[in-house]
Amino acid sequence: MSAVEPILLTPGPLTTSARTRQAMMIDWGSWDDRFNQLTASLCEQLLAIVNGAATHHCVPLQGSGTFAVEAAIGTLVPRDGKVLVLINGAYGKRLAKICEVLGRSFSTFETAEDEPTTAADVDRLLRADNGITHVALIHCETSTGILNPLPEIAQVVAEHGKRLIIDAMSSFGALPVDAQQVPFDALIAASGKCLEGVPGMGFVFARKESLASAAGNSHSLAMDLQDQHAYMAKTGQWRFTPPTHVVAALHEALLQYNEEGGLPARHERYAANCQALMEEMGNLGLRSFLPTAIQAPIIATFHAPKDPRYQFKEFYERVKAKGYILYPGKLTQVETFRVGCIGHVQPAEMREAVAAIGEVLREMEVLDI
Amino acid sequence: MSAVEPILLTPGPLTTSARTRQAMMIDWGSWDDRFNQLTASLCEQLLAIVNGAATHHCVPLQGSGTFAVEAAIGTLVPRDGKVLVLINGAYGKRLAKICEVLGRSFSTFETAEDEPTTAADVDRLLRADNGITHVALIHCETSTGILNPLPEIAQVVAEHGKRLIIDAMSSFGALPVDAQQVPFDALIAASGKCLEGVPGMGFVFARKESLASAAGNSHSLAMDLQDQHAYMAKTGQWRFTPPTHVVAALHEALLQYNEEGGLPARHERYAANCQALMEEMGNLGLRSFLPTAIQAPIIATFHAPKDPRYQFKEFYERVKAKGYILYPGKLTQVETFRVGCIGHVQPAEMREAVAAIGEVLREMEVLDI
Ligand SMILES: Cc1ncc(COP(=O)(O)O)c(C=O)c1O
Ligand SMILES: Cc1ncc(COP(=O)(O)O)c(C=O)c1O
Repeated sequence: MSAVEPILLTPGPLTTSARTRQAMMIDWGSWDDRFNQLTASLCEQLLAIVNGAATHHCVPLQGSGTFAVEAAIGTLVPRDGKVLVLINGAYGKRLAKICEVLGRSFSTFETAEDEPTTAADVDRLLRADNGITHVALIHCETSTGILNPLPEIAQVVAEHGKRLIIDAMSSFGALPVDAQQVPFDALIAASGKCLEGVPGMGFVFARKESLASAAGNSHSLAMDLQDQHAYMAKTGQWRFTPPTHVVAALHEALLQYNEEGGLPARHERYAANCQALMEEMGNLGLRSFLPTAIQAPIIATFHAPKDPRYQFKEFYERVKAKGYILYPGKLTQVETFRVGCIGHVQPAEMREAVAAIGEVLREMEVLDI
Repeated sequence: MSAVEPILLTPGPLTTSARTRQAMMIDWGSWDDRFNQLTASLCEQLLAIVNGAATHHCVPLQGSGTFAVEAAIGTLVPRDGKVLVLINGAYGKRLAKICEVLGRSFSTFETAEDEPTTAADVDRLLRADNGITHVALIHCETSTGILNPLPEIAQVVAEHGKRLIIDAMSSFGALPVDAQQVPFDALIAASGKCLEGVPGMGFVFARKESLASAAGNSHSLAMDLQDQHAYMAKTGQWRFTPPTHVVAALHEALLQYNEEGGLPARHERYAANCQALMEEMGNLGLRSFLPTAIQAPIIATFHAPKDPRYQFKEFYERVKAKGYILYPGKLTQVETFRVGCIGHVQPAEMREAVAAIGEVLREMEVLDI
């Protein structure tokens, strides 16, 4: 184990602050009042980020982000509902897969991985199929880093009287969503992304009336958000053992989030990280997969160098040896790699990371970028 | 926050060692080789504890223990299977609830909370209903601390050619189970119990052939253990983001487990904890709910004092102020409270805890024990 741990330039788990990790040095009793207060404070702070306290409940859930996404679909889409799934990457495909496994009717609309879904598409699709009850989409599709036009889509969905489920896993906390402006039934995120906690729990902002009428929908005991919420509202406790240390770390990360200046400050820092990354990568001749206009400041996809001396595995290991962990590409058609802009990192570190990338390409004699 | 954190005398989350918590001070990349090695080493060490490497896979799962129990039932019981659920407490009832929510046929056999299920019961029940494909039981029923006679029941289930699912959440790692002697299709446990890790993941030892033929059984994407295992076998990675810090802590806890002397040493320490607890509580006049013969050295249930001046809430808070966190009772008929014997604690600390309990009873002027 090296003395200095590498910086994670990945879309979560990511680099956290020492203060956040330090919060895991205490063992909490999951039945104890002090821990219940931690949970309550967590939910309150999370709701404030989406301005959702008046209209939504925050329902935390054990497990990774996918567990929370599945829980939201299983709990909020009635068994005879039908979901329109908007896809332009791997996480959109996963939404469809979840509907399939859960036995919920669904249809899909897929655009290219560098092409956002538009509100006009959604309008047309909803006109064409009146059986659709819910629309599900990815806010920032992490497979590329593409941003879908959430406010416009939410508007159209609401106009049609349909309900919206938003997977905002990789954007929540960094890109603004106001529950009073952007109507949704569920918005889903997790601890180990832009809030800079450690992974191990997700949470769902669920519209109060939708949750109240969702009893009996769920295909699962553990993932029943209606039951999870009802129990927590009554007892202040999680239904099943919470990941106490993960909860404590997220709580501490949220204190820092607010001290930093909340969402605007977090957004600004990530945007600065992304810009520093783009500039320096451009100087090396490395090309971004997405045009700037649809690039979210969360994770960036770069075309792999054309040079046959470039091999991702070796490139990755060499960059890691210099202190930075990159992320593989997730596209099937084009060879790419990804660099995250999120986590407890600053623009200066992004520049140092790209300097390391440049050195590695020279060491590997990768000339044809 | 007090300088010295209270000791948790609870059935998990429990008190962990500083070394285990210290392992959470590193941020791991979930895609990185080094983390994959951690996962592989974890599964290998866990399999060794049940002597299961030849016959079973270890499938780790994000979430609390209940998630792993639900995943095991959903994945391993075919949709047309039928489960006989053996119940003598709240966790047995939860098994039945899971079958109900998942839509698996099941029947239940319930004994009193101080009465273990017997192999003769199971033999009779299996004779009476040939439609049963699986038997599910709790090894140590944590609601009271009662131990069910697992080896005998497993024998009978195997003789009938049926399959066994064991919830060993609170006993795994402390009470011996040898997969080559005790036939089972699934044995389920979690990170934050007798292995003394932190909560946030469970794991299932699943019989290799049963898992191999389980594709398509699961009601859930996230909880599909067949898919989880297949992906991990192919890539070395978790399908969805792992709780990296929880995994690292469990790995570190397992190193200490082995250094301490593995299962025999862990069992011995917990048995000594339990004995110290029983002796000292007996000296105070506090009566154990279970007879010694069926008491597992995991958690003990005590009758609440009869004195009207006794109130659990006040009692709990006062004992906590002296540095020990107790656990409420879980019985509906009798007023009780519970004291855990597991976690990074020694018999001397158990005696100190009971001394604190004695002081509190005197302070509260609880005379009629
Ligand atoms: C948009 C999106 N959805 C879902 C997920 C799945 O989350 P997890 O890997 O925690 O299950 C991710 C993970 O990065 C994501 O970026
Ligand atoms: C026997 C048994 N089964 C299941 C569980 C549920 O585990 P969790 O609370 O982690 O979901 C517990 C928890 O203590 C248990 O003791």
